[in-house]
Amino acid sequence: MWGGHYSLAPAEIMAKINNSIDFDKNLFQQDIKGSIAHAKMLVIQKIISKTDGDKIISGLNKILKELESGKFVFRAELEDIHMNIEGRLAELIGDPAGKLHTARSRNDQVATDFKLWVRDAIDNLDVDIKNLQSALLEKAEEYYNSIMPGFTHLQTAQPITLGHHLLAYVEMLGRDRSRLFDARKRLNELPLGAAALAGTSFPINRDLTSKELGFDKPMANSLDAVSDRDFAIEYLFIVSLVATHLSRLAEEFVIWSSAQFKFIKLSERFTTGSSIMPQKRNPDAAELVRAKTGRLFGNLISLLTVMKGLPLAYSKDMQEDKEPAFDSAENISLCVQAMTGMINDFSANEKNMKKAAEAGYSTATDIADWLVKNLGIPFRQSHSITGKIVKLAEESACKLHELPIAEIKKICPEVTDDLFDVLSVENSVASRKSFGGTSPANVNQAIKSARKKFL
Amino acid sequence: MWGGHYSLAPAEIMAKINNSIDFDKNLFQQDIKGSIAHAKMLVIQKIISKTDGDKIISGLNKILKELESGKFVFRAELEDIHMNIEGRLAELIGDPAGKLHTARSRNDQVATDFKLWVRDAIDNLDVDIKNLQSALLEKAEEYYNSIMPGFTHLQTAQPITLGHHLLAYVEMLGRDRSRLFDARKRLNELPLGAAALAGTSFPINRDLTSKELGFDKPMANSLDAVSDRDFAIEYLFIVSLVATHLSRLAEEFVIWSSAQFKFIKLSERFTTGSSIMPQKRNPDAAELVRAKTGRLFGNLISLLTVMKGLPLAYSKDMQEDKEPAFDSAENISLCVQAMTGMINDFSANEKNMKKAAEAGYSTATDIADWLVKNLGIPFRQSHSITGKIVKLAEESACKLHELPIAEIKKICPEVTDDLFDVLSVENSVASRKSFGGTSPANVNQAIKSARKKFL
Amino acid sequence: MWGGHYSLAPAEIMAKINNSIDFDKNLFQQDIKGSIAHAKMLVIQKIISKTDGDKIISGLNKILKELESGKFVFRAELEDIHMNIEGRLAELIGDPAGKLHTARSRNDQVATDFKLWVRDAIDNLDVDIKNLQSALLEKAEEYYNSIMPGFTHLQTAQPITLGHHLLAYVEMLGRDRSRLFDARKRLNELPLGAAALAGTSFPINRDLTSKELGFDKPMANSLDAVSDRDFAIEYLFIVSLVATHLSRLAEEFVIWSSAQFKFIKLSERFTTGSSIMPQKRNPDAAELVRAKTGRLFGNLISLLTVMKGLPLAYSKDMQEDKEPAFDSAENISLCVQAMTGMINDFSANEKNMKKAAEAGYSTATDIADWLVKNLGIPFRQSHSITGKIVKLAEESACKLHELPIAEIKKICPEVTDDLFDVLSVENSVASRKSFGGTSPANVNQAIKSARKKFL
Amino acid sequence: MWGGHYSLAPAEIMAKINNSIDFDKNLFQQDIKGSIAHAKMLVIQKIISKTDGDKIISGLNKILKELESGKFVFRAELEDIHMNIEGRLAELIGDPAGKLHTARSRNDQVATDFKLWVRDAIDNLDVDIKNLQSALLEKAEEYYNSIMPGFTHLQTAQPITLGHHLLAYVEMLGRDRSRLFDARKRLNELPLGAAALAGTSFPINRDLTSKELGFDKPMANSLDAVSDRDFAIEYLFIVSLVATHLSRLAEEFVIWSSAQFKFIKLSERFTTGSSIMPQKRNPDAAELVRAKTGRLFGNLISLLTVMKGLPLAYSKDMQEDKEPAFDSAENISLCVQAMTGMINDFSANEKNMKKAAEAGYSTATDIADWLVKNLGIPFRQSHSITGKIVKLAEESACKLHELPIAEIKKICPEVTDDLFDVLSVENSVASRKSFGGTSPANVNQAIKSARKKFL
Repeated sequence: MWGGHYSLAPAEIMAKINNSIDFDKNLFQQDIKGSIAHAKMLVIQKIISKTDGDKIISGLNKILKELESGKFVFRAELEDIHMNIEGRLAELIGDPAGKLHTARSRNDQVATDFKLWVRDAIDNLDVDIKNLQSALLEKAEEYYNSIMPGFTHLQTAQPITLGHHLLAYVEMLGRDRSRLFDARKRLNELPLGAAALAGTSFPINRDLTSKELGFDKPMANSLDAVSDRDFAIEYLFIVSLVATHLSRLAEEFVIWSSAQFKFIKLSERFTTGSSIMPQKRNPDAAELVRAKTGRLFGNLISLLTVMKGLPLAYSKDMQEDKEPAFDSAENISLCVQAMTGMINDFSANEKNMKKAAEAGYSTATDIADWLVKNLGIPFRQSHSITGKIVKLAEESACKLHELPIAEIKKICPEVTDDLFDVLSVENSVASRKSFGGTSPANVNQAIKSARKKFL
Repeated sequence: MWGGHYSLAPAEIMAKINNSIDFDKNLFQQDIKGSIAHAKMLVIQKIISKTDGDKIISGLNKILKELESGKFVFRAELEDIHMNIEGRLAELIGDPAGKLHTARSRNDQVATDFKLWVRDAIDNLDVDIKNLQSALLEKAEEYYNSIMPGFTHLQTAQPITLGHHLLAYVEMLGRDRSRLFDARKRLNELPLGAAALAGTSFPINRDLTSKELGFDKPMANSLDAVSDRDFAIEYLFIVSLVATHLSRLAEEFVIWSSAQFKFIKLSERFTTGSSIMPQKRNPDAAELVRAKTGRLFGNLISLLTVMKGLPLAYSKDMQEDKEPAFDSAENISLCVQAMTGMINDFSANEKNMKKAAEAGYSTATDIADWLVKNLGIPFRQSHSITGKIVKLAEESACKLHELPIAEIKKICPEVTDDLFDVLSVENSVASRKSFGGTSPANVNQAIKSARKKFL
Repeated sequence: MWGGHYSLAPAEIMAKINNSIDFDKNLFQQDIKGSIAHAKMLVIQKIISKTDGDKIISGLNKILKELESGKFVFRAELEDIHMNIEGRLAELIGDPAGKLHTARSRNDQVATDFKLWVRDAIDNLDVDIKNLQSALLEKAEEYYNSIMPGFTHLQTAQPITLGHHLLAYVEMLGRDRSRLFDARKRLNELPLGAAALAGTSFPINRDLTSKELGFDKPMANSLDAVSDRDFAIEYLFIVSLVATHLSRLAEEFVIWSSAQFKFIKLSERFTTGSSIMPQKRNPDAAELVRAKTGRLFGNLISLLTVMKGLPLAYSKDMQEDKEPAFDSAENISLCVQAMTGMINDFSANEKNMKKAAEAGYSTATDIADWLVKNLGIPFRQSHSITGKIVKLAEESACKLHELPIAEIKKICPEVTDDLFDVLSVENSVASRKSFGGTSPANVNQAIKSARKKFL
Repeated sequence: MWGGHYSLAPAEIMAKINNSIDFDKNLFQQDIKGSIAHAKMLVIQKIISKTDGDKIISGLNKILKELESGKFVFRAELEDIHMNIEGRLAELIGDPAGKLHTARSRNDQVATDFKLWVRDAIDNLDVDIKNLQSALLEKAEEYYNSIMPGFTHLQTAQPITLGHHLLAYVEMLGRDRSRLFDARKRLNELPLGAAALAGTSFPINRDLTSKELGFDKPMANSLDAVSDRDFAIEYLFIVSLVATHLSRLAEEFVIWSSAQFKFIKLSERFTTGSSIMPQKRNPDAAELVRAKTGRLFGNLISLLTVMKGLPLAYSKDMQEDKEPAFDSAENISLCVQAMTGMINDFSANEKNMKKAAEAGYSTATDIADWLVKNLGIPFRQSHSITGKIVKLAEESACKLHELPIAEIKKICPEVTDDLFDVLSVENSVASRKSFGGTSPANVNQAIKSARKKFL
């Protein structure tokens, strides 16, 4: 493969560690697409003849079919997907095959293939996330006024609606999609034409290949073009952040579907049983979504570590770029789709949720706010008074609205019966009408806006 | 601090683990800025009186001065910067201080403060990187036609110019700045007004505070507003990638300034001596820049791990968000500025670089290309022929241009004397005129474009 | 500081990035201890005179007192703790101070100091963990037969006792302590005497210094001695694993103290209130323990990244070894001690726990086992039969022991009334007598063994 | 699979995310080994009959052969390796197959299988590393007195021998093996018998299975037994540290085989050529060894992240434990073996190395030491004087031994001609006789000790 220069065969262990065909065959579509674009440009620029170009392109299309149909025979001794395809092309069309690599190097070829692949992965993930947003919006609509406790520190804080809670994830995922959008735009410059690292003396036209492959323009520096794996690292980062968001929802699903919370029931389609405890309905899908965050962080750290302190231009270290990306793409897709299925299929136990919201003095803040609004008491004082009222209720083992007004007056004589209006969770939720707040009216409006923005 | 509800003092160890004043005092400017905006809005919305609002604002401005001048007395028992400032405000203006926290919670307050801080950090880093790009461009201009070996695998590959090499980093840093730009735009939505997690029943106007604080708009979901730390994680990621880029240049500086390479001489201002080996000129600054990548990766992993699987909305876990961000901001600033200094001060040993470029058969590719262009030999064959020619030179212990034409003709009879034209490194470099290539003419053009684009 | 060789002062930014005195002053005790041992050896080996040695040692002891009392004046221009101490020694005793550094280099000096520091950190952590084990054992004794649901997937699986659950952590922490023990033994070889990297021509005696400083022996290779930071990385790893263990218990505490679980009540001393929701008792300490796992992972990744691909021997990159170690030591100590406090102070709600254990068909496995034992049905079949019985109970909305025997017989005709014996959680728990099982008798025995083994 | 309890089939995406057979089939040997031990114990304890036990064991042995010969047909719908084997057993022996799972759960079964697997992986890695140590020792012997520059900061520091340098790695790897030894000892307690999480009411004998499977004893707490993945995390950590060590040597090989250093020549068997630059001999194997550090760090972070904050006992998250371990085992084995091959095959260019050692004033320290020993000048002063001498040589563009004595005397009048004795690299190296130092005599001795200790 390396010309007439080498006399010794590689060691067996070298063959094993060096071989990339087992994973980079994933790039076959991108490799052929890139080669066809390159061949077309070579013809237009008269670097190779039209006849040769046509043979090359038709040969490549044939190979594409062989690969897509699983009939292609991979040869490990050809080391990678690029040499496998070129080797097969030589079998099919003979000498002209040797002209395809004119004005190109494996360095810019592989950078181009991998960029095309990551670009596809970004597009696929964007669709998956959009579907999840759509599922969340549908459920948010279903539960737009279903009251549940809003938690801080997993302690009941204030009543909210389940719809509002689900919308928080629509927002997170919306930011993730905007990250994908930005990353896609940023990566969309073509490395091809950088050759080994210095550019080429052939009169190539990189604008042509760039356009043909859907890039915005060629990369401006040939050394950078073959040394850069930013696009893959940025993709791995965004995937990590998507996974972090999903892990939060997954954790909530695990907790909410516990016997103690019973806020939701996950579908049997996304839970499993136990080999020894027949009554179990284990939230396996949610747990796996939560857990896979680990491998996705790992993949990010993996490639960051590879690139740290690596001199320009290409080093073989960079062959370790693909497996983390392939693994992250596969696993984040599983996670997002599994979460979409769980969202579609789960049902909320509205009665339990509301009951939980009513416990825990969740409307204490409403008292404090009432004192401010109606008695003009500074918030910090009203907060302190409320603390005493709650303590009273706790000691009396009753709910806030069950406290006798006389007892409350001992703490704050100016309080009137009107206070009791704000103590119900319905009124509390309905009152949170500030923009972004949890009132059902807001939630309905937010769903409409989100549909318009994201779907 | 928590109203009349608590009877026991926190354990001593609890005070230690819970206390954040030692680091979140960094947020004082953002906290006061946010509080003033909040107070203004409360007045406009008639939630508090103008008199109270004026007292609050003037009190806050006084506290700002105390803090800026170092006269502010921090009280550890007040736990964090927010309570320290509010406590001082109460001392200064009495009762009205208690009204500032109306329609606000520490949850949306701290999210707002921290966002403002990260936004500032992004802006500062952008300036630092721009200065580094400027330094790189100046040096690139100085060495636009200084020939050095271009490496792949740290093996001599093809001759390039030092200017071209430096421009690769201008591109990387340009992408980093575009990431900062995108992140800044994405984070620029205001959390304030989300209150604890559910919004508020006070008739606040979040558009006012948003505008006052330079945000594009208020965040759309109150739960998301207090649960979100994406903006900090994204910042930590971008910093990690900047550091990765710097670490590559730092590694090159370490290698290039070794006695064996002697490509460059780092300034004494950025190197140190040794306590036992007086002759040493150690590239400490470059090594530290390279090493700090580790802590910056660590900070990224740190916050990702904190947020993994965290139920909504606020949990105390999120207090661990600030120290990694503060540490990363400080250290990336050191790294970028130190690298800027090294770039400004280093000088290249052009003689050594050129000599190195001439060794190692660096123009072998030019032979292969010549064979394609002049003899119409398919590239793969020309590559194989070139391999034989190089092997011949190696066995004869001579340079390529020293090979007798007769010997070359034994390998490829069609070769003519014209071949020798492409064997000099000057001609090789000059011939790489494809867009993005290393020819001095290209480099000059690229510097102009980069100045226009980035400075 | 670097002899007569340098003419230019370092750049301001260089001073900032290079300066380590702000953090390596933590090493002052170790540095002085190491220097005294070195001086003693130099005297014994007659490399310096006894008079000079005595002056040096007495000077160092004086400096130690200055440092311990906070009276020592640090000078940033002396860069690190070693030069600060040596500088002060010169002020105190004049010329003989210059003899202390004979046959030594900052490289082996700093490796020795840092090893001594990590060794101390290991010893301190071991004590902290032992105290936590002790607290856990006391609570395990208190709740040795308090029944609670054992969870898998956070779903009720089988009844266990709280004592048994707590003992699981005693085991994990026991493994952590054995890791500390192994790491301590492994690190306990002395770097001092490696000099810069090659050893020295002075007739030093490394066995003497090794013994003096409590090491088992001197390190066998001088290059390794100054290049090695394994001991710090291993420490950071063990800390990460301790934190992982604590994070699991912390998570359980957060969940168990939720209004929905109400299994435990955390002490007010380890919880906090809310600025807007006066009724909250937030498990802040538990959340912080859980969250700090992130920074401890980050510190591990930080130093691993620093050391990756670093050529021998010392490089300045290695100055980035200390801050992660200092930060991890401080934070893991906070975590372990805070957890000890929480364990000491929490109380369990035995009624709620038992009620929860009785729900969820937690004794389903006991039915399956009964069928195997009493009817000779293969386990896989008995499991399937049990599944049907549980389904029946679920559909009848009753508990297992409330099912009419007649209905059960429809599923499995051979069942007798004896089956009902195994349906109570008390009997279920008592029956788990296999070694390591949850029966109260086992738990009591396990507590005794653990006390003997760990305390 | 989960008895009669479930009515709906899992969603397709659930099947994909939940399925583990694609990777956990790696555990087949351990699974069968564990099952046989369990069956034997059940027979001895009379929990199942000898007849049934014999059928089970003979069936399992048959399945083992099917698996080893590749004839076993995996069924994805059986989800994992355990159910695949049990399913096949039922086909082969009918009803008795259903008795194998008596007194066992998938939770303790999988913990046992995985522990056995990790234990094997540890043993295999220990052998690989030992072979690498052996190769290093052989090369160290070959080059025990081959002088090269010892570097700090990649700057020439003092002359050392290549043998001494290689021995540093023998030490690092020796520590790694001691870590493996400790980890193996620590993991060697049996989880089997913990059942689902609580132990079992069957009269099992865990000492029997423990002994049968080569464990030291059964684990002491059933909850810990099924919740613990420490052993895998510790393995992943040790692998990360081994990789870090290898990455340092790999980096040195890359640098040393550059055209500028030319210290060593890597064998063709461990280098590759280039598709466009026929003269290249790229150190691919070394680069891959260096790069794979990234994925090994990633695997460590992956599992640490999975386990963070996971409540007891088993959660499905823990299914994500195996792939990182499998990947790390495979890749560290490739790395260690490839490095062994590189060590075996490389040759040093002793002439170049020595020449490099002689440049760079590498014996400056020897001057400083001479001044101390012969003139009684305190080291700090002698160091300063030496700095001036080196500066003089640098300004005169000559080597140290070429400086006229008269000129040196201007700096330090007491200097005599004897000083020139210490200026040769041979004498310098030979003088470093302190324990662990680089003198060839020491190196020879160190090789003997290391052989005794490690091989």
